[in-house]
Amino acid sequence: MNSNQKTSPSPRPFLDGLEAYVPGEQPRGGGWVKLNTNEFPYPAAPQVLEAIRREAADTVRIYPDPTSTALREKLAQRNGVEPDQILVGNGSDEILRLIAHAFLGPDRPLAMVLPTYTLYEVLASQFGAETRIHKLIDLERLPDSIYKGDWTACFLPAPNAQIGTAFPIRQLERLANAGGLLVLDGAYIDFAPGYDPLKELKDHPAVIHTRTFSKSFGLAGVRVGCAIGPKPLIAALHKLRDSYNVNRLSQAAAIGALEGADYYAARCAEIIESRKMMTRELEKRGFVVPESHGNFVFARRADAPALYEKLKARKILVRYFRHSGLEGGMRITIGTPEENQALLDGIDAIGTEC
Amino acid sequence: MNSNQKTSPSPRPFLDGLEAYVPGEQPRGGGWVKLNTNEFPYPAAPQVLEAIRREAADTVRIYPDPTSTALREKLAQRNGVEPDQILVGNGSDEILRLIAHAFLGPDRPLAMVLPTYTLYEVLASQFGAETRIHKLIDLERLPDSIYKGDWTACFLPAPNAQIGTAFPIRQLERLANAGGLLVLDGAYIDFAPGYDPLKELKDHPAVIHTRTFSKSFGLAGVRVGCAIGPKPLIAALHKLRDSYNVNRLSQAAAIGALEGADYYAARCAEIIESRKMMTRELEKRGFVVPESHGNFVFARRADAPALYEKLKARKILVRYFRHSGLEGGMRITIGTPEENQALLDGIDAIGTEC
Repeated sequence: MNSNQKTSPSPRPFLDGLEAYVPGEQPRGGGWVKLNTNEFPYPAAPQVLEAIRREAADTVRIYPDPTSTALREKLAQRNGVEPDQILVGNGSDEILRLIAHAFLGPDRPLAMVLPTYTLYEVLASQFGAETRIHKLIDLERLPDSIYKGDWTACFLPAPNAQIGTAFPIRQLERLANAGGLLVLDGAYIDFAPGYDPLKELKDHPAVIHTRTFSKSFGLAGVRVGCAIGPKPLIAALHKLRDSYNVNRLSQAAAIGALEGADYYAARCAEIIESRKMMTRELEKRGFVVPESHGNFVFARRADAPALYEKLKARKILVRYFRHSGLEGGMRITIGTPEENQALLDGIDAIGTEC
Repeated sequence: MNSNQKTSPSPRPFLDGLEAYVPGEQPRGGGWVKLNTNEFPYPAAPQVLEAIRREAADTVRIYPDPTSTALREKLAQRNGVEPDQILVGNGSDEILRLIAHAFLGPDRPLAMVLPTYTLYEVLASQFGAETRIHKLIDLERLPDSIYKGDWTACFLPAPNAQIGTAFPIRQLERLANAGGLLVLDGAYIDFAPGYDPLKELKDHPAVIHTRTFSKSFGLAGVRVGCAIGPKPLIAALHKLRDSYNVNRLSQAAAIGALEGADYYAARCAEIIESRKMMTRELEKRGFVVPESHGNFVFARRADAPALYEKLKARKILVRYFRHSGLEGGMRITIGTPEENQALLDGIDAIGTEC
């Protein structure tokens, strides 16, 4: 190689202190009851699998539609907006990054609550922005400080991650009018029937709504999400995305999922019923379980850290967060009835071990 | 909506002047001889299609391996490096963006040649970095100015885009030692047998090599690329990528493509033979055709702009660039023998029209 230099050039200094987001564990091998990353527990709709098989063709050699036109049109129809109000991304994580890139920076701070989806803070750091954390009262209620609007953008899941809180619409409206950009991350929206921030805040010039196919459409492995918002803001995000950000197979799978929307809606209704059942059953076992509007529950009990480990030893995986005031509980994805029962049985068996 | 504000919050000012990269046209409908975006002209290897079909399964609901472990291991073996020296991306466009994000910024300028892959300049703008353009001599030779090293990173395709120049290895080595980061974009490397900057500059601490599955592995529609470089730099890029940046289907397809590597190598050899034939045939028709080491040729003739339009009217699509000193020619992807002949026939027919 004959190099005169022995060390690599340095990346930008902000990277030294940057901690990457740590996604939930994806265990290898079979036999796990996997209730840790809020994946959809049921089989895919036949339309999804057919769509992917159809794309297993010689067209893989051709670049995909750069703007996901057909998918945007379907999403526009579903959400009652125009196609130019939609940007499709490689998962909603890409959408959130694009918004951070377009809006955040030095002197353009992010506001977020705590607990929440911890990716937001990582994204702010990637663009040199400060994060102003507004701790939720009792893990659930928005503090008054957040309405001051001393932030450029506020990223808020509605329903919230980890606990599943559906913040009241009037509070979201107040936040939307605080002066900055409000990003309402709707990852769990399909598990909250009747709760509709998109409808209530439709066409608000300061709100971008995000959606993902990872949860209620069971496509976490395929990576599709979208932003829905004012046209000028969507146009700005388009400038920043990779030219061909969503591949052919994923575009087709997402279209297939929308064609199977009735199937997914029925399965989501089952998940909501299971959530109610699990809330009751966990409460019977001494857990405190705040009302959740997602496909998960957060269950608090004094022995949560040990219980998490003991469940894992039995190949039952839930999520344990060592931060954000969540140390006293476990986040449990709602699975199939069999998986849910396996978790309850595991908890019961561990209880008698001690 | 009851909004107090009538306009949207403003994105960062850099977006006002930013022009997005404009990808080559993807015509809708059939019947096109599509020689404009350097796609692979032959069918996919059976291993690719089988891999995609295998992934059309209920596992679509599970998040993909965030670090593309199996694919990285195969790529490491193929390229004679360690898996920690590789980052897999959603196309090599993502890889290039991550490098721009990690290295470029205000007071951290990009160097690029002209003509080249015009995405580089867009990426620099996205991160507030100046682009220092070093015009190639006669569209092909590196000017002395570029070795001064007054740049943080230099993005250089080797072979180059548009013309297909394989810059001499000794010149690349000199650039690698100029003090900044040298990114050698190897999108076309498999069409340049015997030209091996990765081998010659392997383990150089200031060089990152990129690879794509879009060209020689025919997966443009599936979006997979990778970076190969020093471990600390690859680790820095990992911090910036979206957690699940490459979906399950694409990871599987790329592994299938590597399993079909012999098939693709044989097809690339055919493309190289066709390139030689096309160079001769175009020269016979009065074009000046610099020697290309890509899956395309750049063919100059005085009537190029008009010819491009007339070919398009016949549903024969080549690429015409209205910039970079390329106005006098057309970039023509090497297609199947039938497509190549259709182009030559089109040129001949148009010639007699006038």
